[in-house]
Amino acid sequence: MYPKLVELKQKLAIVHDLNMAAAVLSWDNETYMPPGGAEARAQQLGTLLSLAHEKFTADEIGHLLDDLREYEASLPYDSDEASLLRVARREYEKKMRVPSEFVARQTETQALSYNTWVKARPQSDFHAVIPWLEKILDLSREYSSFFPNGSDENHHVADALIDLGDPQMSAADIRRVFGELREQLRPIVRAITSQPPADDSCLRQFFPEAEQLKFALGVAQQLGYDLQRGRQDKTAHPFMTHFSIGDVRITTRVKEYDWSEAFFSTIHEAGHAMYGQGHSRSLERTMLAEGTSSGVHESQSRLWENLVARSKNFWEHFYPKLQTAFPSQFENVSLDTFYRAVNKVEPSLIRTDADEVTYNLHVMMRFEFELQMLEGKLAIRDLPDAWDETITRDVGATPPNLSQGVMQDVHWYAGQIGGAFQGYTLGNILSAQFFDAALRAHPTIPEQIRRGEFSTLHGWLQHNIYAPGSKFLPNEIIHRATGEELNIKPYIAYLRRKYGELYEL
Amino acid sequence: MYPKLVELKQKLAIVHDLNMAAAVLSWDNETYMPPGGAEARAQQLGTLLSLAHEKFTADEIGHLLDDLREYEASLPYDSDEASLLRVARREYEKKMRVPSEFVARQTETQALSYNTWVKARPQSDFHAVIPWLEKILDLSREYSSFFPNGSDENHHVADALIDLGDPQMSAADIRRVFGELREQLRPIVRAITSQPPADDSCLRQFFPEAEQLKFALGVAQQLGYDLQRGRQDKTAHPFMTHFSIGDVRITTRVKEYDWSEAFFSTIHEAGHAMYGQGHSRSLERTMLAEGTSSGVHESQSRLWENLVARSKNFWEHFYPKLQTAFPSQFENVSLDTFYRAVNKVEPSLIRTDADEVTYNLHVMMRFEFELQMLEGKLAIRDLPDAWDETITRDVGATPPNLSQGVMQDVHWYAGQIGGAFQGYTLGNILSAQFFDAALRAHPTIPEQIRRGEFSTLHGWLQHNIYAPGSKFLPNEIIHRATGEELNIKPYIAYLRRKYGELYEL
Repeated sequence: MYPKLVELKQKLAIVHDLNMAAAVLSWDNETYMPPGGAEARAQQLGTLLSLAHEKFTADEIGHLLDDLREYEASLPYDSDEASLLRVARREYEKKMRVPSEFVARQTETQALSYNTWVKARPQSDFHAVIPWLEKILDLSREYSSFFPNGSDENHHVADALIDLGDPQMSAADIRRVFGELREQLRPIVRAITSQPPADDSCLRQFFPEAEQLKFALGVAQQLGYDLQRGRQDKTAHPFMTHFSIGDVRITTRVKEYDWSEAFFSTIHEAGHAMYGQGHSRSLERTMLAEGTSSGVHESQSRLWENLVARSKNFWEHFYPKLQTAFPSQFENVSLDTFYRAVNKVEPSLIRTDADEVTYNLHVMMRFEFELQMLEGKLAIRDLPDAWDETITRDVGATPPNLSQGVMQDVHWYAGQIGGAFQGYTLGNILSAQFFDAALRAHPTIPEQIRRGEFSTLHGWLQHNIYAPGSKFLPNEIIHRATGEELNIKPYIAYLRRKYGELYEL
Repeated sequence: MYPKLVELKQKLAIVHDLNMAAAVLSWDNETYMPPGGAEARAQQLGTLLSLAHEKFTADEIGHLLDDLREYEASLPYDSDEASLLRVARREYEKKMRVPSEFVARQTETQALSYNTWVKARPQSDFHAVIPWLEKILDLSREYSSFFPNGSDENHHVADALIDLGDPQMSAADIRRVFGELREQLRPIVRAITSQPPADDSCLRQFFPEAEQLKFALGVAQQLGYDLQRGRQDKTAHPFMTHFSIGDVRITTRVKEYDWSEAFFSTIHEAGHAMYGQGHSRSLERTMLAEGTSSGVHESQSRLWENLVARSKNFWEHFYPKLQTAFPSQFENVSLDTFYRAVNKVEPSLIRTDADEVTYNLHVMMRFEFELQMLEGKLAIRDLPDAWDETITRDVGATPPNLSQGVMQDVHWYAGQIGGAFQGYTLGNILSAQFFDAALRAHPTIPEQIRRGEFSTLHGWLQHNIYAPGSKFLPNEIIHRATGEELNIKPYIAYLRRKYGELYEL
């Protein structure tokens, strides 16, 4: 290998190690850390992340990237080396535009804002968070100002923020796609919710925690989640995290009177985790051993959670096993009743609890609010009213208080306004595109799922999505895997087919 | 505060954060990491520790320490600031003598040697480890050569190695102390082992794991181990680790057919942990938030494990509670039988399983071998024979194979030869000195222990040992706390008193 590339890779590996070490400390923070450790832990995390930032934005990295331009041009585009140089250069140029002083100021504001939100949310005290949300909005605008794009008429202040999670997606593009999706979803939701709701009482019985976890993790393993290179722990909010390709962990939470909570969150996080475990080993210890975007990452969790684990085929195999695991709860419940229960559609208030059909309405509403706030068309103080109005109109439910309304999600209060939510719906859209493409390549997949076999589907995803990590941009991945651009047709067709049958629409 | 001191403290805090982050990664490594994470984890640890070393030995630290000499002289010796400058300077001067190239070479050799030992030990294949032990010995000698001390006639090649764990102790001093101790111990061991062994069958029944852990951790809390700032997990070998004064963790292992394993290892590690939790809060995020030496640290674990938790007073309080926790196992066992069982003395092969009386013979034998190897008087290839001969003579047991003999301890195979073992016996000696001093100050302590009250003892240790952390050198701590130098009289008196009574010697 070219000596300067060896040098660059070594420097980037150290940055990667620091980021992965920080991820271990964060995982411990959420899982096992005793309360007394919090203060020092925050400082330790701060130290690791600033060192990573400092080492990545060092002049030497810039010089090496410059010196390697010619060498990069001589390499095949698809090669690991060319991809690393391409991605490192893009990230370097992005990070260099953001002053360290801004990063420190933003981090501090986010932490203080988060603390205020944690206390204010149970009281629905929006008044307390208004000044913080205003600061967060200012910081989001300031971040965007580091990426001016004067000549581009379509440039939106949200674009630089969206780019953080979903490169190549612009506010204008997403607005158009979401507009179409909203048009298609509303009549489906209306048609379903005009019917009597499905009976999901079978899921609301008592299910002992240990047995729930055992069953869910057993299924996740059968889908392809490798416990030699992963594990599951309990946390307040489920998440996936990775410290290397060989150590990709998930967490879940258990409700003993709601069977679906732990099961579907386990499958969801296992979907993310299989992506993380599936990166090519040759990418280990590089920034390419990551998902390529939040949308593509979410497509992997939703594909397994919804298209697979809420399908009739899937439960034809697993429902008898579930009945064996929980005989008293399920012996008198038919597969059909159970299948309807896990696919119950109803107007609801909380995004993370929403069903597959209404979920996107929650997300798209938030995305639109972000754009309007950034555009100056929606003031922070007017947000609660706008929220209640929109969710009543779009979903058909009205929050009884702000903690179940505008104050429910941490994203704006601890992060940024702009770019925080679109990935969830992009992921749903993409999950159907990828699943369709896998089925075109391997038409026997549904039949295999009905037999509890997942290796063909897992193998297709492994090859097309998991292995390349972030070597390619999301649009490249989508095009390579499906031959199409991002579009909502497969997703709408999937929903129409499935819910048309379920609700005889 | 003096601006240059502020600057130095900030730089040292970053080094400390890196070392603490490495400790979190190591803890995870031993507790929850899936096997697939091992390779990347080793690299992450390497990165954190080299960065910590690099940042600590940076020229700027040296300049700041120089510039602060005058300021330091103006501060009271006992102050946190003067102590930090004193300790940082000592560590800096020590670390600066060791070339980074040596550290890298040593780390790599230790890792390879460790891997060889792990595979060779079950087969008692000493032949496989000979070349590695020879390399380790060469590296230990080389390390020592960075600290020449030509004018001092008493200088021993082991001194620099001993100094790593037990500053102010020389090979000559320890040899003398250990010589006296051996003289005193041999007749006691002989007298005890000529009698029929105590009956410890009550400890060898079935004890369910969860109940064992619950009882042991409950006792540890009653002694003063704070679970708001700590926790317990299971590992192959018990240890204590700390990530801050607010997060000091212990681990244990459980044998369901040997009640003493989990219980005494929990009390032992809790003794270390109370030391770590007791450092003055003003030392947080500095290198002073550490024990002052391996001997003093071990004195804290052994004091609680042996002088407290193997005493008759202790069990007068706790034995009825133990009988309630394990009624079927203990209801027909008298306190006297139980007390004799937990204090059974017998010739044994494995250091970590040895009783309080014979334990030191195992340690002192290893220490003497280290000196002889460093002196060139004992060749690696002759070590197994020397081992078997000495343990047969001193302890009265002969290993049936090398895995229960010379290959049992990891220390030489993964670390260094010289300085690896003396702390264990220094700790035993000091545990009695500190306990005696606490009793002189508070003669009611034994009576309090008999009532299950530990706050007076804990308070004395807190004030005299825990709070100062490593502000003072071990000899300073010993002198401040006891008014004496290190000496074996209290320890021998304790053993004579206790075992004289138990065995009617």
